[in-house]
Amino acid sequence: MSFSLTGVHEECGVFGIYDPEGRSVASDIYYGLSALQHRGQESCGIAVTDTSGPAGNVCYDRGLGLVNEVFHETNLNALKGNLGIGHVRYSTTGSSVLANTQPLVMKYLKGTLCLAHNGNLINAAELRHELELGGTLFRTTIDSEVIACLVAKNRVTSSSAEEAVKKTCASIRGAYALTVTSSRKLIGVRDPYGLKPLCLGKKGSGWILASESCAITSVGGEFIRDIEPGEIVIISHDGVHSDYLEEKPSQRAHCIFEYIYFARLDSTIDGVSVYDARLRGGRFLAREYPVEADLIAGVPDSGLISAYGYAQESGIPFGFIFHKNSYVGRTFIKPTQKERENAVKIKLSVIPAAVRGKRIVLVDDSIVRGTTIKNLIRDLKKAGALEVHVRISSPPFLHPCFFGTDVPGTSSLIAHEHSVEDIRREIGADSLGYMTVSALSELSGGLPICRACFTGSYPMTVPDHDISMDLEQST
Amino acid sequence: MSFSLTGVHEECGVFGIYDPEGRSVASDIYYGLSALQHRGQESCGIAVTDTSGPAGNVCYDRGLGLVNEVFHETNLNALKGNLGIGHVRYSTTGSSVLANTQPLVMKYLKGTLCLAHNGNLINAAELRHELELGGTLFRTTIDSEVIACLVAKNRVTSSSAEEAVKKTCASIRGAYALTVTSSRKLIGVRDPYGLKPLCLGKKGSGWILASESCAITSVGGEFIRDIEPGEIVIISHDGVHSDYLEEKPSQRAHCIFEYIYFARLDSTIDGVSVYDARLRGGRFLAREYPVEADLIAGVPDSGLISAYGYAQESGIPFGFIFHKNSYVGRTFIKPTQKERENAVKIKLSVIPAAVRGKRIVLVDDSIVRGTTIKNLIRDLKKAGALEVHVRISSPPFLHPCFFGTDVPGTSSLIAHEHSVEDIRREIGADSLGYMTVSALSELSGGLPICRACFTGSYPMTVPDHDISMDLEQST
Amino acid sequence: MSFSLTGVHEECGVFGIYDPEGRSVASDIYYGLSALQHRGQESCGIAVTDTSGPAGNVCYDRGLGLVNEVFHETNLNALKGNLGIGHVRYSTTGSSVLANTQPLVMKYLKGTLCLAHNGNLINAAELRHELELGGTLFRTTIDSEVIACLVAKNRVTSSSAEEAVKKTCASIRGAYALTVTSSRKLIGVRDPYGLKPLCLGKKGSGWILASESCAITSVGGEFIRDIEPGEIVIISHDGVHSDYLEEKPSQRAHCIFEYIYFARLDSTIDGVSVYDARLRGGRFLAREYPVEADLIAGVPDSGLISAYGYAQESGIPFGFIFHKNSYVGRTFIKPTQKERENAVKIKLSVIPAAVRGKRIVLVDDSIVRGTTIKNLIRDLKKAGALEVHVRISSPPFLHPCFFGTDVPGTSSLIAHEHSVEDIRREIGADSLGYMTVSALSELSGGLPICRACFTGSYPMTVPDHDISMDLEQST
Amino acid sequence: MSFSLTGVHEECGVFGIYDPEGRSVASDIYYGLSALQHRGQESCGIAVTDTSGPAGNVCYDRGLGLVNEVFHETNLNALKGNLGIGHVRYSTTGSSVLANTQPLVMKYLKGTLCLAHNGNLINAAELRHELELGGTLFRTTIDSEVIACLVAKNRVTSSSAEEAVKKTCASIRGAYALTVTSSRKLIGVRDPYGLKPLCLGKKGSGWILASESCAITSVGGEFIRDIEPGEIVIISHDGVHSDYLEEKPSQRAHCIFEYIYFARLDSTIDGVSVYDARLRGGRFLAREYPVEADLIAGVPDSGLISAYGYAQESGIPFGFIFHKNSYVGRTFIKPTQKERENAVKIKLSVIPAAVRGKRIVLVDDSIVRGTTIKNLIRDLKKAGALEVHVRISSPPFLHPCFFGTDVPGTSSLIAHEHSVEDIRREIGADSLGYMTVSALSELSGGLPICRACFTGSYPMTVPDHDISMDLEQST
Repeated sequence: MSFSLTGVHEECGVFGIYDPEGRSVASDIYYGLSALQHRGQESCGIAVTDTSGPAGNVCYDRGLGLVNEVFHETNLNALKGNLGIGHVRYSTTGSSVLANTQPLVMKYLKGTLCLAHNGNLINAAELRHELELGGTLFRTTIDSEVIACLVAKNRVTSSSAEEAVKKTCASIRGAYALTVTSSRKLIGVRDPYGLKPLCLGKKGSGWILASESCAITSVGGEFIRDIEPGEIVIISHDGVHSDYLEEKPSQRAHCIFEYIYFARLDSTIDGVSVYDARLRGGRFLAREYPVEADLIAGVPDSGLISAYGYAQESGIPFGFIFHKNSYVGRTFIKPTQKERENAVKIKLSVIPAAVRGKRIVLVDDSIVRGTTIKNLIRDLKKAGALEVHVRISSPPFLHPCFFGTDVPGTSSLIAHEHSVEDIRREIGADSLGYMTVSALSELSGGLPICRACFTGSYPMTVPDHDISMDLEQST
Repeated sequence: MSFSLTGVHEECGVFGIYDPEGRSVASDIYYGLSALQHRGQESCGIAVTDTSGPAGNVCYDRGLGLVNEVFHETNLNALKGNLGIGHVRYSTTGSSVLANTQPLVMKYLKGTLCLAHNGNLINAAELRHELELGGTLFRTTIDSEVIACLVAKNRVTSSSAEEAVKKTCASIRGAYALTVTSSRKLIGVRDPYGLKPLCLGKKGSGWILASESCAITSVGGEFIRDIEPGEIVIISHDGVHSDYLEEKPSQRAHCIFEYIYFARLDSTIDGVSVYDARLRGGRFLAREYPVEADLIAGVPDSGLISAYGYAQESGIPFGFIFHKNSYVGRTFIKPTQKERENAVKIKLSVIPAAVRGKRIVLVDDSIVRGTTIKNLIRDLKKAGALEVHVRISSPPFLHPCFFGTDVPGTSSLIAHEHSVEDIRREIGADSLGYMTVSALSELSGGLPICRACFTGSYPMTVPDHDISMDLEQST
Repeated sequence: MSFSLTGVHEECGVFGIYDPEGRSVASDIYYGLSALQHRGQESCGIAVTDTSGPAGNVCYDRGLGLVNEVFHETNLNALKGNLGIGHVRYSTTGSSVLANTQPLVMKYLKGTLCLAHNGNLINAAELRHELELGGTLFRTTIDSEVIACLVAKNRVTSSSAEEAVKKTCASIRGAYALTVTSSRKLIGVRDPYGLKPLCLGKKGSGWILASESCAITSVGGEFIRDIEPGEIVIISHDGVHSDYLEEKPSQRAHCIFEYIYFARLDSTIDGVSVYDARLRGGRFLAREYPVEADLIAGVPDSGLISAYGYAQESGIPFGFIFHKNSYVGRTFIKPTQKERENAVKIKLSVIPAAVRGKRIVLVDDSIVRGTTIKNLIRDLKKAGALEVHVRISSPPFLHPCFFGTDVPGTSSLIAHEHSVEDIRREIGADSLGYMTVSALSELSGGLPICRACFTGSYPMTVPDHDISMDLEQST
Repeated sequence: MSFSLTGVHEECGVFGIYDPEGRSVASDIYYGLSALQHRGQESCGIAVTDTSGPAGNVCYDRGLGLVNEVFHETNLNALKGNLGIGHVRYSTTGSSVLANTQPLVMKYLKGTLCLAHNGNLINAAELRHELELGGTLFRTTIDSEVIACLVAKNRVTSSSAEEAVKKTCASIRGAYALTVTSSRKLIGVRDPYGLKPLCLGKKGSGWILASESCAITSVGGEFIRDIEPGEIVIISHDGVHSDYLEEKPSQRAHCIFEYIYFARLDSTIDGVSVYDARLRGGRFLAREYPVEADLIAGVPDSGLISAYGYAQESGIPFGFIFHKNSYVGRTFIKPTQKERENAVKIKLSVIPAAVRGKRIVLVDDSIVRGTTIKNLIRDLKKAGALEVHVRISSPPFLHPCFFGTDVPGTSSLIAHEHSVEDIRREIGADSLGYMTVSALSELSGGLPICRACFTGSYPMTVPDHDISMDLEQST
């Protein structure tokens, strides 16, 4: 939906499925992508192949919009095949948006290569320049096309598609979870740091790869296990085979954002339940920032579980205080500045009966510009709330992410140039408490995480400039 | 959304606004209808007029789909005027759907008449036949057109538009909340039983009429009061004038469904907060059907507040156990029967971490066919729930509604031919308890309500046959 | 197409068909309307009924655009029935365009009435006001709706639909060719002056009514005869019955425009072949305005046959000198004024090889503003033409038409304030000759015609003001 | 339009324009492509760049449909730049249609390369395989992408874009007319045989390249000269520079189809006016196959000028006998077989008044399956024609074209297995005469032409199998 409350965006979700017994998979990809829709709402695509047909014969469709906007019965039924991948994407606007839609579908020496990518490379510009020096043409401005071109190039000197993928991973650096199909195989791979999630499932005779476990269970499949960081899985008629990339990083660095915002409540990633992680976050806030109050409430939907954890720990009742209008879609006309000042409310409305005379603790997952939370506090007080204490389940982010999370430019972040007390005053809260960086490992249940956007300490050496426009500009 | 969990539908929502100081109102109608979208998702429309321009000059647009699908900046900006009404509608499919969209816009002796109607007449077929005997032509199959034709006919012998509306109300019988515009006035009227809601608000220099108070507050307006049953309000440059219909029924009969399902949590209707009503419903269930459990949960979204009330009364913790996918829109491809059996989950997914090892009380607002609740119970037990006790916040409905609520045909209602114990066994619950008819007045806070669909005792004499197709068929 | 070379427009074409043996007629209406597309390109519609089904059950679809844009296999196949009418319309732009689309489909005492109208009434405003005084509501601003409402009103006191139509014709004044369906009958009627054409055809067991004979032969039917002025035909399972309106005008007055511009070359109307009429027009011009030349050419397509007639009579060879781009459709972006001055050519291009060194006679059907012919003459001379002599196959029109022909306002007509010599100089022609009013009866083969737009002498008393906006404005 | 009367298709038209003074060119490309629309109606595209902006910044849009369907004011206005190319394409249906749309727009070492191609390579499959061995990925199944990839590869070892194009032309074999843009230049090149046309024009300060001269004059430009076979022109801020490819073929071989069918009447190609060529064709037919007749007529539009030539030579009058419905567009629903037998006429209708009692010579450009001409002869005789003598302005084609003309498979050609007398009897003509192969050089005015499709003697060595699907299939 276009009314993100946080301004932080995940870039993508991937899904792959292969049924050696020949069952059509387009419908499962459709429902799987729907379950991953929260990871990207701007565009999506599906590419399938029939492993019993001629090699390289791929049907695909892609478009701008939600899965249920791009796909309808007619174009979905036209996607015939028992091997396929899908992708949902959040992307910036611009003329090249449609061209940048995934999965990428490309013809090469060995038929047709399809590739869907979640993550971000830090050396894509150098790699593309090298390829261009060899005469390679690019149709998009995404780093995923660099990966695909390398796989195609490496395939020439490799004995198998998986070997070409492995060679490619040796030269790319950054965050990636890939699903790739060659004519007869489904391949999945995850970067050595495990920055982006990828897991394996089973449905009947078929195998599934997905960014989150919720996509597997949504299609009626069974979650088997997470793909390990640096692991490459090859799914063919022989079943699932596993191999490892050469690179052995000194540490794992799972993205903490998956637990705080991105992933769905019903997913478990790298052994940690997203629901539990948020609950623990809320409990920590209750211990760290206790306050006398009548009601603990969360900003829907991302703050609800942390609020619930706060309520459990504090013993203060949890409550509902907002109505969320679920009919406000992608094409909604946003209120003008003047209308906003006139208190036009679109997405969230206060339930007056629930807040009158109450002292409220309001939990949200982050504060970006501070405008949203400020308006909510104003509305709550107007409806009769006596006090509003704000608790935020993530630390302030202060450093850019190079691995695919779209954090707003630091200059627009309220935390960048304001103290916590400044922010509290600005938003009109009676008190304000942020999750601490040191408590994140409690939230993640001890899982080694990447916390670079809070600390500036990156798991690998990163460029000294903003790389987000590198591929847009010509040499 | 197309995935109604209940199968019970409200037919419409209405909104009207007049700003004597000339401010454009289309944008407020847009946001107001968005706030009423839950009352009807199949079609919508807006009609506006400029009271300083030539009489009868009306701009309008209508279409199938949600407010944010039908209206975009271009067609909304083209709707220039300071007086207007809007409508959202739930309707059955069919070739005549578009023709049946409201507001109705018609030229007559005094310029242009616009009319939006929430409710259902029980004598529309007789009235239409009489009008046809006089040579009147109809373009639609909706009872609202009968009302509009009567207003036009009565206008000839009346000194004002409001007098024509009043005369018309003397001949129509059933449920209605109307917003009507003539060239210079906004008129609202509510049937003498108060079956359908209508309320008055103020925003700056302008006056608002709306089905629910949430539409007034959503556009930044202030709720003033409910229109009384049998009251007619005339809003012109002179301000708001009030009058009453001749008919004085012996009783009021507010539709209880507004509190149980239809209305938004943040609305207050006829002095009763919807949020509070649902809370009381849940508390009653806790007293009437206590059970030992670890967790009280609601089926999102309509069961959440009743569950919360149950939790408050019982002292057992409230909890979240489902993830609801809010990206599943109107055009979503529904799973086939086979896919459903394969446990493909679209709208609601269980959060395993929240239910494992728990005894759960699950609260929903109704059981129609029983399929949905049965699947949820199966999913919960598969995820490790030890027990699932179901509590329903409405009594079983056993009789047709003649006043505009689309209750599924009695034959498809599970309650019609099954005992409560049969249903409990069929859906796989460990126990099952329904709201009692006698407790409804507790839920409504003592407000006199129509409970005909539960008891068969109607507030007025109703026809002895199903009238829903009367206007579709020709004489 | 939007690039009319003349600026004169016919308003409509009608088509009706009834097959008593039950064959589906939607497809014939589709092809019949396609053959009448030149009579109206802005909107079209089809309404059909199944005479063996329940009375009043009508399927219809209408839309803006050409027949092949509005109808596709899906919506055409949904139109099931063996009795139906269709309509193509040229209309002015505006918000109410879609509402004004025909056929009109309305429910009344006796089921459903469908009506398609070609022509224009001169007393529609008075009639509508009378109906409004009786409380009738109107949804459109077209005079055709007034006719439909009168038929419905008269039906109440009539023993048959045809009697109601006959009573209606007694009160309406102006030009009309109507096709009407009741539940079981197809009715056609033509005004007493015969201003607008209507003819009867047969295809297998079915009967056809159409504005022009080309529509009958295009669907593989056989032309039977023209409907007489003032005749009403009733087509039912009993076959074709004929009756006459009461009004007996002193004269017939067939619209001469049908022969000069509107009708298709392969049509014969009221016994006169359109092709022959244009040929005679060209021959007259050759006798009246002879000139020494090398080549006679016509402006495609409307001037071609007159040019051919000129060539036959003069003995000078006919030739092709323009290429017409047939891909320039309704949505074509028109060149800006600046681009036009830069000689951007869209629709017609000169063939240089055909004109170099030639003295040319160029025949067209009319001169409206003079811009088009001026540009063509410039292009011809630039391509090497030595002389360009212009001959026009209609007299200058100087008076408004009240009967449905959209002649540009007199102020924009070049003939209105300029002498022939002025115009010749303005357009850059070497000589210029117009068809004379007295020769029109030669062109029409002696048929009594309406020549009011040239002479100001109308066949009936007409209002003293422009009536074209009467129905748009409110009382 | 979808109702091709011949079944022979040209594949493409190209247009390029560069204005060193910075004027926006999108509008000229739009009108230029409209003038080339007859060369391809299935898809089209425009790509522009601003030479004063950053290198490689290209805006483009492409889509399925006619130029006036794909482009509207909004997307055309978004195409800002003073250097650009456009393309219209006829293509076969299939899932990959949209991906195959041109111009191709690709990022490479030196910014962005745009390329539009008319023609067909005979060694594309080999070249693509070699490129794939080097790891190149392909997104389409068109040979034009092979050319673009070679240009990109050669650019690495070249000092300029034109040198890369020249190197590329040294390795590709077949027919091609290319327009290419690099960041600052417009490059045009034509294969050494001159199989496909390309010419140069000037408009104000800007230079134009186009497939036909009509596109230059349509936008108000001036035709300068044809690009020579084997010539490469480089247009930059320095003006127009010319160079030549290395390959010097022993002969020129201009495609004769351009004069018989493809090109527009108002174009002159390689010094020969298309209008004159068709006229000469008709004159030859008159001398070779004289017959006593009353009227010479052509099948619109492609047979008209040849008929006119026949009339000039024979002294028998030329005449119009058909009405062509110009409203029948791309989306027209084709009549079913049964409807066709019922004589449903869509595109061409006989004008009875013109043919009654006449002996007619009917000239067309080709006979493919014979169905169309057979129906026309039947309609003419039904309308009273006494005799119908058929003359065809091309020889029967018996051999496949390898250079981009889509001749129907030989098995469906009536000429393949039938003698002329057989065909005459089958189509019901009174006599039948074809253009002879030896007379083609008379038609072309002595220009050296490719007549391989009539004789099987190709200007270069061609593969021994049908290459049309080579790129669709995987290795």
